[in-house]
Amino acid sequence: MNRKMIFRVLGLILLCLCALLVVPAAVGLIYHEKISHFLITIAITGVFALLLICVKPENDMIFAKEGFVIVGLGWILMSVFGALPFYLSGEIPSFVDALFETASGLTTTGATIMENVEVLSRGTMFWRLFTHWIGGMGVLVFIMAVMPMSGNRSMHIMRAEVPGPTVGKLVPRVRKTAKILYLIYIALTAVEYVFLRFGGMSVYDAVLHSMATAGTGGFSTKASSVGYWDSAYIDTVIAVFMMIFGINFNLYFLILIGRWRDALKSEELHWYFLIIIGTTLAIAAGISDTYGGFMQGVRYAFFNVNTLMSSSGFGNADFTLWPEYCKWILVLIMFCGACAGSTGGGMKLSRIMMLIKCAVVDVRRMTRPRSVVSVRMDGKSVDREVISATLSFSLLYALCLLLFTFIISFDGYDITTNFTAMISCLSNMGPGMGLVGPAGNYSIFSDLSKLVMTFAMLLGRLEFFPLLVLFAPSTWKK
Amino acid sequence: MNRKMIFRVLGLILLCLCALLVVPAAVGLIYHEKISHFLITIAITGVFALLLICVKPENDMIFAKEGFVIVGLGWILMSVFGALPFYLSGEIPSFVDALFETASGLTTTGATIMENVEVLSRGTMFWRLFTHWIGGMGVLVFIMAVMPMSGNRSMHIMRAEVPGPTVGKLVPRVRKTAKILYLIYIALTAVEYVFLRFGGMSVYDAVLHSMATAGTGGFSTKASSVGYWDSAYIDTVIAVFMMIFGINFNLYFLILIGRWRDALKSEELHWYFLIIIGTTLAIAAGISDTYGGFMQGVRYAFFNVNTLMSSSGFGNADFTLWPEYCKWILVLIMFCGACAGSTGGGMKLSRIMMLIKCAVVDVRRMTRPRSVVSVRMDGKSVDREVISATLSFSLLYALCLLLFTFIISFDGYDITTNFTAMISCLSNMGPGMGLVGPAGNYSIFSDLSKLVMTFAMLLGRLEFFPLLVLFAPSTWKK
Repeated sequence: MNRKMIFRVLGLILLCLCALLVVPAAVGLIYHEKISHFLITIAITGVFALLLICVKPENDMIFAKEGFVIVGLGWILMSVFGALPFYLSGEIPSFVDALFETASGLTTTGATIMENVEVLSRGTMFWRLFTHWIGGMGVLVFIMAVMPMSGNRSMHIMRAEVPGPTVGKLVPRVRKTAKILYLIYIALTAVEYVFLRFGGMSVYDAVLHSMATAGTGGFSTKASSVGYWDSAYIDTVIAVFMMIFGINFNLYFLILIGRWRDALKSEELHWYFLIIIGTTLAIAAGISDTYGGFMQGVRYAFFNVNTLMSSSGFGNADFTLWPEYCKWILVLIMFCGACAGSTGGGMKLSRIMMLIKCAVVDVRRMTRPRSVVSVRMDGKSVDREVISATLSFSLLYALCLLLFTFIISFDGYDITTNFTAMISCLSNMGPGMGLVGPAGNYSIFSDLSKLVMTFAMLLGRLEFFPLLVLFAPSTWKK
Repeated sequence: MNRKMIFRVLGLILLCLCALLVVPAAVGLIYHEKISHFLITIAITGVFALLLICVKPENDMIFAKEGFVIVGLGWILMSVFGALPFYLSGEIPSFVDALFETASGLTTTGATIMENVEVLSRGTMFWRLFTHWIGGMGVLVFIMAVMPMSGNRSMHIMRAEVPGPTVGKLVPRVRKTAKILYLIYIALTAVEYVFLRFGGMSVYDAVLHSMATAGTGGFSTKASSVGYWDSAYIDTVIAVFMMIFGINFNLYFLILIGRWRDALKSEELHWYFLIIIGTTLAIAAGISDTYGGFMQGVRYAFFNVNTLMSSSGFGNADFTLWPEYCKWILVLIMFCGACAGSTGGGMKLSRIMMLIKCAVVDVRRMTRPRSVVSVRMDGKSVDREVISATLSFSLLYALCLLLFTFIISFDGYDITTNFTAMISCLSNMGPGMGLVGPAGNYSIFSDLSKLVMTFAMLLGRLEFFPLLVLFAPSTWKK
């Protein structure tokens, strides 16, 4: 393994973090706030980054294994150094809490340990929501778009980074791809900003909420999240943009180059819309009495379906009070997650589709043992390798879910709370059910549980392998 | 498909049911009870059976597909006709309830809809627990041991019937195998009976509890289950026998023919004991204060670990009141289940082992993309086909669990109750958590939910495929 090259790339990643930290520092300056915590963080991170960059590798060859290690360690370092501003300012007095909050931000989970977020200074609050935007498209895609790297090397990072099984190469050159994806990302964020401003949001809130939506994050500047505005317009705008950011970005690229038809043919997209429409109506029927009329029911159902489907986690209502069947629909959606290749988390819809199709094919195979039945997606037969990877992913998801729930259950909270908190962390969702519902937060857990959850959020965001290979002895053999 | 032959075999199965119903009728006679409900059931079932047997097939060829259909329909018919005595006697006034109770008995689940079982007459109670014993080794293995059938035909039924991925052929001739397994089963039941009698149980209770343990069922003659006797001796005897009936019967066969060493080498057996010891100690540590001392903690932990590990469901304590981490350990054990080839339910330990090994291999493969790493069990590399079947099984289990929980959630109970009730039904366990814990029962659910749960119990017992192929259109094509 080319360890020196790994150090060097990690140094470059931390240098980017320094550059990113300038933004919240500038915001702090604008609002005449103390910004020393940002400056100290930039200094510490900068020194550390330069030490790493000073390592001179014999060659700059990077293979898949190195790619995984860089991504795994890169996200851990970003979370640790990114947590410093919260900790140094004293606004989050415990470092474990600060780490949880930063990882939750970068992984676009949106789970918070803060009982009242509104006490944060504007600069720190900006950093908190800015991490969603950075994390959204993957900080390493960001780095690829900015840093000069050879195609091959970037591809391995890309493979480990971009969520979902069907990303594919948009254009042969990775850097160019990253730039295009990033432009789409910025443009959509800007459009959302405009819409939110029309709804009467302040510049500050509109910027932050657009960035948090783009990353399908879920942090808000308000304790009552989007519910603070209590506006059907703002609810709908944010819900629609959560839905938009939950769609595979390949499709936007296809639309950009004029291939509308191919984009609209995507089977995953059809399922995505069908599920959103179906569950919205099913839930609306159950809650319309509570909110006074079917249309109000649709408003709250549509918002909360999208907040969980895209794994954002914004809130405008406490769905833990909804009928039990509605809650279970929401749990199912939490498992599902958004489309592959989007900024959303969860298992990803295309994986769920593949699993369901596998199950159907298995049953059909039983009745016709000699016929060859294959799993088909978008009209094409799916590779054995892809199915096998999907099954591995689901397996790791289930094992981690069961194991981590066990660890956090020592804190003594009920099964619903523990189990859905863990689904929420692994799926980068934000809220769960029970005590971690939209009205609750994660401050109730012990430090050990918070560390396990931090790890779970990173595992979910990086789709398990980049972090797990860090624990495989064979990774570290010379 | 050879439909006529299917009718004929189903007729023979129902004829066996008639013969089995003579036993509880005799018990009723001994205790001078009314037995008309048994006689009417025997008459109805007998007429129906004879009508089916009268169908003359052109040939007696049976292939895998027919085997699945026979097993699937056979269990459904057994449940429906087996429910008649409960219904006709008026002791369970609702037919849906009677069907649930019978399916729960035959599938050796042990979930009950009765709020107070002690009101049942002795004959009916005998039938209730006798169904566990019948279901235990699979009513069709029973039929194979009794009825003259060609080797090939029986093998297909056997394949669909015996739980777990690693049954294998004990001896080439299936009928002989079935007889040997059945003798082991009877012998172990008899030994348990003797032990229970020593503990001061009445003949009636000892017979019924030995039969229910043998099937890893969980029905009891007492409302407070095994807790009624409040005896450390009886708790331990039943716990040990639940453990024994949760072990792969192949191993007893190996011991019988003197191959001790091979039997003790089984990796699944090692895991089984390690899990039982580890979880017993972990739970005992958490509950010893409640029960006054570590040894009392061990007593209750050992009993309840075994009751869930073997999927029996006898109770001697209300574990829903235990610490949260203990409850989650029990949920994990509910997923796990007993060894393959035992009378126990659940995913089966060997499947869980295989899944964990698959996950480890997948992570290792990531770091060494070119090396060939295979999943190994008992020192041998596992066939791709077996792994694929294990993954299909887990997939169907997960999909059914999530979907069925959704359907029963319309009754309005909490997530913990619904989710664990469904795990319990699919794993043929009996109790769950929340309202369906050892102190609760399933009478709270609606008829629709009870039917879904009945279906889930049958699905779990038959390991999904035999019932699911009934819904595949290709099964019914000429």
